[in-house]
Amino acid sequence: MAGNSFGDIFKITSFGESHGKSIGVVIDGCPAGLAIDLNHIQFELDQRKPATYTGASSRKEDQNFEILSGVFEGKTIGTPICMVVYNKDQKSDDYNHLETVFRPSHADYTYFAKYGIRDHRGGGRQSARETVARVLAGAIAKQILKTYGISINALVTQIGEVCFDAPILEEHLLFSTQNELKTADEITKVNMQASIENALKTGDSLGGVITCICMGVPAGIGEPVFDKLHAVLGQAMLSINAVKGFEIGSGFAGASMKGSAHNDLFEFKDGKIATQTNFSGGIQGGISNGAPIEMKIAFKPVSSIAQPQQTINNINEHVSLSIKGRHDACVLPRAVVIVEAMAALTILDFILKNNSSRLQPFDTKN
Amino acid sequence: MAGNSFGDIFKITSFGESHGKSIGVVIDGCPAGLAIDLNHIQFELDQRKPATYTGASSRKEDQNFEILSGVFEGKTIGTPICMVVYNKDQKSDDYNHLETVFRPSHADYTYFAKYGIRDHRGGGRQSARETVARVLAGAIAKQILKTYGISINALVTQIGEVCFDAPILEEHLLFSTQNELKTADEITKVNMQASIENALKTGDSLGGVITCICMGVPAGIGEPVFDKLHAVLGQAMLSINAVKGFEIGSGFAGASMKGSAHNDLFEFKDGKIATQTNFSGGIQGGISNGAPIEMKIAFKPVSSIAQPQQTINNINEHVSLSIKGRHDACVLPRAVVIVEAMAALTILDFILKNNSSRLQPFDTKN
Amino acid sequence: MAGNSFGDIFKITSFGESHGKSIGVVIDGCPAGLAIDLNHIQFELDQRKPATYTGASSRKEDQNFEILSGVFEGKTIGTPICMVVYNKDQKSDDYNHLETVFRPSHADYTYFAKYGIRDHRGGGRQSARETVARVLAGAIAKQILKTYGISINALVTQIGEVCFDAPILEEHLLFSTQNELKTADEITKVNMQASIENALKTGDSLGGVITCICMGVPAGIGEPVFDKLHAVLGQAMLSINAVKGFEIGSGFAGASMKGSAHNDLFEFKDGKIATQTNFSGGIQGGISNGAPIEMKIAFKPVSSIAQPQQTINNINEHVSLSIKGRHDACVLPRAVVIVEAMAALTILDFILKNNSSRLQPFDTKN
Amino acid sequence: MAGNSFGDIFKITSFGESHGKSIGVVIDGCPAGLAIDLNHIQFELDQRKPATYTGASSRKEDQNFEILSGVFEGKTIGTPICMVVYNKDQKSDDYNHLETVFRPSHADYTYFAKYGIRDHRGGGRQSARETVARVLAGAIAKQILKTYGISINALVTQIGEVCFDAPILEEHLLFSTQNELKTADEITKVNMQASIENALKTGDSLGGVITCICMGVPAGIGEPVFDKLHAVLGQAMLSINAVKGFEIGSGFAGASMKGSAHNDLFEFKDGKIATQTNFSGGIQGGISNGAPIEMKIAFKPVSSIAQPQQTINNINEHVSLSIKGRHDACVLPRAVVIVEAMAALTILDFILKNNSSRLQPFDTKN
Repeated sequence: MAGNSFGDIFKITSFGESHGKSIGVVIDGCPAGLAIDLNHIQFELDQRKPATYTGASSRKEDQNFEILSGVFEGKTIGTPICMVVYNKDQKSDDYNHLETVFRPSHADYTYFAKYGIRDHRGGGRQSARETVARVLAGAIAKQILKTYGISINALVTQIGEVCFDAPILEEHLLFSTQNELKTADEITKVNMQASIENALKTGDSLGGVITCICMGVPAGIGEPVFDKLHAVLGQAMLSINAVKGFEIGSGFAGASMKGSAHNDLFEFKDGKIATQTNFSGGIQGGISNGAPIEMKIAFKPVSSIAQPQQTINNINEHVSLSIKGRHDACVLPRAVVIVEAMAALTILDFILKNNSSRLQPFDTKN
Repeated sequence: MAGNSFGDIFKITSFGESHGKSIGVVIDGCPAGLAIDLNHIQFELDQRKPATYTGASSRKEDQNFEILSGVFEGKTIGTPICMVVYNKDQKSDDYNHLETVFRPSHADYTYFAKYGIRDHRGGGRQSARETVARVLAGAIAKQILKTYGISINALVTQIGEVCFDAPILEEHLLFSTQNELKTADEITKVNMQASIENALKTGDSLGGVITCICMGVPAGIGEPVFDKLHAVLGQAMLSINAVKGFEIGSGFAGASMKGSAHNDLFEFKDGKIATQTNFSGGIQGGISNGAPIEMKIAFKPVSSIAQPQQTINNINEHVSLSIKGRHDACVLPRAVVIVEAMAALTILDFILKNNSSRLQPFDTKN
Repeated sequence: MAGNSFGDIFKITSFGESHGKSIGVVIDGCPAGLAIDLNHIQFELDQRKPATYTGASSRKEDQNFEILSGVFEGKTIGTPICMVVYNKDQKSDDYNHLETVFRPSHADYTYFAKYGIRDHRGGGRQSARETVARVLAGAIAKQILKTYGISINALVTQIGEVCFDAPILEEHLLFSTQNELKTADEITKVNMQASIENALKTGDSLGGVITCICMGVPAGIGEPVFDKLHAVLGQAMLSINAVKGFEIGSGFAGASMKGSAHNDLFEFKDGKIATQTNFSGGIQGGISNGAPIEMKIAFKPVSSIAQPQQTINNINEHVSLSIKGRHDACVLPRAVVIVEAMAALTILDFILKNNSSRLQPFDTKN
Repeated sequence: MAGNSFGDIFKITSFGESHGKSIGVVIDGCPAGLAIDLNHIQFELDQRKPATYTGASSRKEDQNFEILSGVFEGKTIGTPICMVVYNKDQKSDDYNHLETVFRPSHADYTYFAKYGIRDHRGGGRQSARETVARVLAGAIAKQILKTYGISINALVTQIGEVCFDAPILEEHLLFSTQNELKTADEITKVNMQASIENALKTGDSLGGVITCICMGVPAGIGEPVFDKLHAVLGQAMLSINAVKGFEIGSGFAGASMKGSAHNDLFEFKDGKIATQTNFSGGIQGGISNGAPIEMKIAFKPVSSIAQPQQTINNINEHVSLSIKGRHDACVLPRAVVIVEAMAALTILDFILKNNSSRLQPFDTKN
């Protein structure tokens, strides 16, 4: 109801403010018996760290997580898993100049309008710091999905005006995990890096696009009508800070195609049902068809820029604002793991829901 | 859980198959005391009827609704409102040739993969006929929103390759309600009509884009983190049949803008807080800022086309399929009222949720 | 949220007022593939009919149900099942004398306090007529439970001051299905009948107790902490009109026992784990232990009595009220099937939830 | 779904095992603007501490809580409030002898049957230690209810065979807060103390009854049908460890009363609507009527007793078990604050829900 939970069966509840004591998450509904890989969770967390690429924030965010409950002798036991990262670098003095000012295209004003209260410390709950909770929970979701042979891979396909437009092959996915901009090939990386450096010089910022591909999801996953698989994936992605657009399969390009070109023809090949094309993006009528699930997610440019901007304060005076502090010129590379986390959380939840779609023989051992 | 409900407080549950006995909806959580305008509900239903424009389906869908509960002496009484449209024109024989065939880019195969059962009569539950339920509930949501001074207006801004790209003014909204293609001006209408006729001649189909604008939503509506207002609007729109993309505000275009251009600068004007531009689309950090909420929704071309297509049947044989029956070459004009319904349902639910955001003096009369 | 839904996976939404057009229910989440036994549903409905026993209401409630959706060729198809009973005998004139009066121990006043509106026709939504919805849904739940070897049996163990106190044996369950008072043996039946007749003569009414026994529920069903199996069974039973008390296992009697007497000692017998006694009522820590689940449910006497009573009207005047119309002197026998329905709905929902308790090998066919 | 959350708007999620790192709770949906009284929270926590009365456990539970999120400058800010108590006294060696044994009337066996995993350390999640989470959240709920003039008071009215049967007056409520057994008067206290000492001597344990009274709840709070106020109160109470029965108002005694005696006659007195008696327990048709809400909750005797008992181990061998460690002979006095917490959480949630019962003028400031 109040918006801090996601999922129905594998349900997560996120808590914590940017400069409060901690950021954390409770997972309720994680099946018992999973051997947790702590190194993998840490690896995932490290992906959203302010990175080494030029133009990334220099805030030293602490990233060591602690498991407070739900794991015993290395395994999940069916009880809620609480994980936290305690905030150590809490120099909220950096934000004192923001106490009375509404930053343009931030959520300062809207939170104040809603709650009647202002937490000016680094954006409080609106900060992207909150996504630590998603990455922690997403890491566990990924570990379960892996036991099902499902993999989730996202990569940066656009930063500013630099796009990677070719079909995404396995070699691109591999390359994306090996470069700090998490993009598809060397030439795109170089061009993106140049764009970011240019934005940085001018005190400006850039947006971009992340493409996410989920492989191994069997046909039949999803719920019809309001909870179509791609509809909930859409909510999941649009809930990430700065996201302004979502496409499944052909997306907006599909709007100008003809039906005869857009329809994905079925064929029976190598012993299984497949489609010749994948404009559907792996989902038809809200339910997976066994093809890779493909999404694109558009991010607006970062709102915190060094250039002075006009705005108002909380007594309606016009003021000029130059945002200090440590901010990214482009967050796309750091957001890749967040996109993956939201995809993993969504798909796992739908797989667990699917257990009840058909009348089944009852296993009394369960 | 099983996907047929939407909303938390103003919660609707949709039921019914295309060629079953009825399509209907139960609204649980409609506030008591609303004087229901039956004519308005019928007017809304009529907007999604197979229309007079060339290229629309000729199926004579019955559209007379009946209220089975929840209204007494013309007013809502706080109990669940059940509304149904009984299906009369159920010539499901038209669909016998589909009993064993999976239509390309339909949900025949995915439903079968999920449920192990095939309802071949006009698509069963996957049919857009289900949206009757949404329009019925949406009409009541609109009536409540009207008492708050909130209006929801959608119009067709693209069909196939014909686009209306100019800023949308009040005159465009007005024109859209007065032409059968529900588009913004005369020239666009003429071009769209030509495109549709052309598609029809070639046994093909078209997609397009609907733009939706919500005016009068005050600042402070929305829930942070996972249930951001635009994230749930995104789910709502992506849950409509054939939708492949969603944008709030700048959308994918925002991805290539710079922060200095994209930031919506605040100003205090005419006694209230406003922004000079609206790339945010009326929502910041998931919460409304008082500006118009602006969305774009991309629809793929209709999957049912007259041209023969290759596909497979349920014993994995390759077959050629020519879809008979009465189908639209383009559904966009009929989908306008559905988009509006989903927007109204979403925004009303968030307004009701917002009642508990702040500690309030307790009204014992309530 | 607004209270008309029950269950998480097998979720029902009830609608309809006593003297409105219909009473009905939507089941969302019924697994596909169940062959529906229509005769059994009708049989169940008939159990809650105003019966032949002296002291039962003579209202001719229509009891013919219709399935509006979710069933195709006799089987559930995974889509929402809507079932309705249209109200035919709507002589709401009988209730005109109640339009301005608050009946003692009815919900007239509290509904008015909540909604600001009065539906005086036979109690509107507060009427026990609503339980038609529960029985319809419960019948389908029972049919699924039967495929798992689970049976639900309730019987009347107290009416007024007449109690059946002996341990309940199979012969008692059998007898209860064969007599109109649904009690355990002949002597109790005769005494109960005499009590009811006496209450009727004096224009008075009686309450009583129903005992419910669920057999065949395997060990391991239930959720810990807030959704303990017996806690949700408690909610389910307390949600039935006129219920004032609920006991699982030893109940209030257990409060005066010593631990050494109350503990159910485990033993391994006939190849399975069992307990020597069953003070736990088949549930330990909120999870079933394989023993029969045993509950007692207390009903207050019917509020509508023929004797004149003092009350107030809606302008706060004291008035004397004699309730006309057709009312039961004792509803217990009619409530047996309602108790069973709520037990079946609860247990089935928990069985479906249990599918996700443990990490499982993934069945891609599912 | 997985049972660790309670409430719809004021929603709590409990986490932590008895001998894990921490016990904690996340509150999502706490209105912004409440000045938190930390001393009151600590006071409440102290009420459930192993107390000074003879027969209470001597485990030194750490009870210092920490707020990890959701409070800024002493006030709630509308974001999730996470509170934890870190477990320090984790001598789980005490429990090694239980690793392979199923304790009678504990949840060892049922958890194992459900999850396939055994956390033998002090009962893990089934331990009453979990109720720390409820008391923390309940304290905040009470603080909000206080601003509405609502008070929640529970007291011990039965331990073993010693009962306090007289009507509960304000002096009894007052006395109960001033004695360690939390009972109604001196003579009952002395008799209860003697009973407990006797049970202790014989290595046995006692159950009892807690009565809970909520004053100041206005008429009109509650939701009809499945979420009747007393039905959810029933679930709330039955979810507390060891509870076997629940009564609202007349409860089981009401089952043997006649309607003419049980009906609560309305009167208009001192300018407001009231009832002459309160067999309804303050709730009619699931909605409050303005009278005090009165409930009774039955607790079974503690399962952990010093006397040797027969049971089985995890390879189905019969073994004799003597439970070591620090256990209460009677938990009733410690459970009073838990009962109050669950009542407060339930009633607050329903008050917040009630904000949407009627169509209301829209406050754009909100």
